[in-house]
Amino acid sequence: MLKRYLLAPGPTPVPPEVLLKMAMPIIHHRAPDFIPVFEEVREGLKWLYQTENDVLILCSTGTGGMVGAVNNFFSPGEKVLTVNGGKFGERWTEICKTYGLDVREIEVEWGYAVKPEQVEDALKKEPDIKGVFVQASETSTGVYHDVKTLGEIVGRYEDTLFIVDAISGLVAHDLKTDEWGIDVMVGGSQKGVMLPPGLAFVSVSEKAWKKAEKSNCPKFYFDFLKERKKQKDNQTNFTSAVSLIIGLNEAIKLLKKEGLKNVFARHEKLAHATRESMKAIGLELFAKESPSNSVTAIVAPEGIDGQKIYKTLREKYGVTAAGGQGKAKGKIFRIAHLGYADVFDVIVAVTAVEMALKNLGYPLQLGKAVAVAEEILMGEG
Amino acid sequence: MLKRYLLAPGPTPVPPEVLLKMAMPIIHHRAPDFIPVFEEVREGLKWLYQTENDVLILCSTGTGGMVGAVNNFFSPGEKVLTVNGGKFGERWTEICKTYGLDVREIEVEWGYAVKPEQVEDALKKEPDIKGVFVQASETSTGVYHDVKTLGEIVGRYEDTLFIVDAISGLVAHDLKTDEWGIDVMVGGSQKGVMLPPGLAFVSVSEKAWKKAEKSNCPKFYFDFLKERKKQKDNQTNFTSAVSLIIGLNEAIKLLKKEGLKNVFARHEKLAHATRESMKAIGLELFAKESPSNSVTAIVAPEGIDGQKIYKTLREKYGVTAAGGQGKAKGKIFRIAHLGYADVFDVIVAVTAVEMALKNLGYPLQLGKAVAVAEEILMGEG
Repeated sequence: MLKRYLLAPGPTPVPPEVLLKMAMPIIHHRAPDFIPVFEEVREGLKWLYQTENDVLILCSTGTGGMVGAVNNFFSPGEKVLTVNGGKFGERWTEICKTYGLDVREIEVEWGYAVKPEQVEDALKKEPDIKGVFVQASETSTGVYHDVKTLGEIVGRYEDTLFIVDAISGLVAHDLKTDEWGIDVMVGGSQKGVMLPPGLAFVSVSEKAWKKAEKSNCPKFYFDFLKERKKQKDNQTNFTSAVSLIIGLNEAIKLLKKEGLKNVFARHEKLAHATRESMKAIGLELFAKESPSNSVTAIVAPEGIDGQKIYKTLREKYGVTAAGGQGKAKGKIFRIAHLGYADVFDVIVAVTAVEMALKNLGYPLQLGKAVAVAEEILMGEG
Repeated sequence: MLKRYLLAPGPTPVPPEVLLKMAMPIIHHRAPDFIPVFEEVREGLKWLYQTENDVLILCSTGTGGMVGAVNNFFSPGEKVLTVNGGKFGERWTEICKTYGLDVREIEVEWGYAVKPEQVEDALKKEPDIKGVFVQASETSTGVYHDVKTLGEIVGRYEDTLFIVDAISGLVAHDLKTDEWGIDVMVGGSQKGVMLPPGLAFVSVSEKAWKKAEKSNCPKFYFDFLKERKKQKDNQTNFTSAVSLIIGLNEAIKLLKKEGLKNVFARHEKLAHATRESMKAIGLELFAKESPSNSVTAIVAPEGIDGQKIYKTLREKYGVTAAGGQGKAKGKIFRIAHLGYADVFDVIVAVTAVEMALKNLGYPLQLGKAVAVAEEILMGEG
């Protein structure tokens, strides 16, 4: 009887309340019993995004939302700036290039956050940059980019859109879409919102909508102007992913019950406990600065392969964390504390790491890391 | 206590076995317990498609699969031929135009099937047509196009691909991908395969793969060459829609248990019973020829609005059928017999129509239509 624990940065566990709602007999997306659900979900997403902007719902993974954030607002040849500090920053660059944009890229060493001055300098040098693309939480490195400050900088340029991939950041971080001037923000279902994969969300500011009218990239499946029109009537342009949207409604209800402030505080605390407990047994965080509250990336100790740690956690203890991606593969392992996560998910993660590392010959005193986690998790707030 | 019956041409009802599988705790798409499921699903789709070709699985609605069937195999300026005999034929034209293809369109009067000679003549006249796009079952009209004969015709042209939208046709019709020379065939989850919306399937022949290498339409989310490479390793290019794929595995098991021949015979019989029962009370089918086995479109009787019939079925009897789409709106109503459907779904549909029409003042003798349905449904095979 090896119980399974899912502690990966997506898909994340789905609460039983949500699973059960989605297991109800399916209903039709154009029929009157779906309309109020869709309306409630639209309002709920605005609440979660802290925005008055439209938040579109798409049937795709988060990457589909990223594609739509490129091909709906820009045209071939337009100059844009991407921040590439990991696998998902790289993806912004790839998508922009796919659609023929003229891409400037700030390459950030993996494990570090972009310095706001880098973006500032790039925009000063080339004020005809029409869009700045960044991650909130870069899932591959466990780094959080300073979206607030970046938003202030980009906001000084009237013709420049600020586009944020918040796929793994949403719910874990307090992202103030409107206050911070985020024109387009992408979310995904299988992360903080505690759903199976299959939905992307994209908020769009009025400034971005105006620019969308001039974009001439080819688009059909991700055609945001058409989606906007339809979704205002609580319909989608194509078949709605009804079961996932019904699940989303339930998931947002759970988050509302907890309250946004508490949701963010919980993630902050779980992340903090995870980080400090790892440090207590001599492990190094992969994020040298500005660690994400969604996922903690930990450097594999000298002589132990990161993938081996991932595999031991999984095979010996039933804990599915994550290994490294791209050039970090083998060098790190990652533990998520995202979405449907509480105190004992961190306890499971930390004790599993203690036991796995001990098993792999890393010298440590069992109980040392978890004691640190307990101390923090016991704290108020 | 108004029980609900879903008899629309998608989403269709999901069997409880499938709903329960999807309600199990979620697993990770890159972890070893998902790999064998994905492998089984890939094999299962080949069985369902009657093909040795790859069948890709995408996280999108069926329309996403249609987009991929255009932008992966063609380049701007290339000449293609679309058959437009309804809302979904129109969609082929729209997608091809979106990607800058040089589109020839055969406009077919709604309610009729394309005459194979029309396609033959078009290809003779312009042998540089590089692709022919058609629906198997055109959901908006309830017409089945003669895919087999069309495949023979297109097959004579070495450089022309034959692309079939089988989103509502798959499972209801015996579509022999390989035998009939279908190069690209698109399916969707919320139809015959009895799943919630969220997955598209696309089979791709070797001939099409060769052409894909030369295509220069921009593509990122629907990049079939990349998907092919990944899916050979039982992974997807982006996050897999794990819960839907697990459900798909279960749904295919149910279909396998029944056997393909029986599956097709069942759909044929349910469709036949629906059609004959409607005719028995003086109603006219919207399909003047070659009716689809997925959905029956029925002309609203003189003086009664089709939408009114749809609404009465729904509000008074809890039966969600479908109204008309596009220019057929108000003129017809549609009843599906697709996927998780048996004898008593037809009985429900037919008796609900009898009662609804009687309610709306149409002169009919209650029991007359259903007697005809019973007679047919009692028959062997």
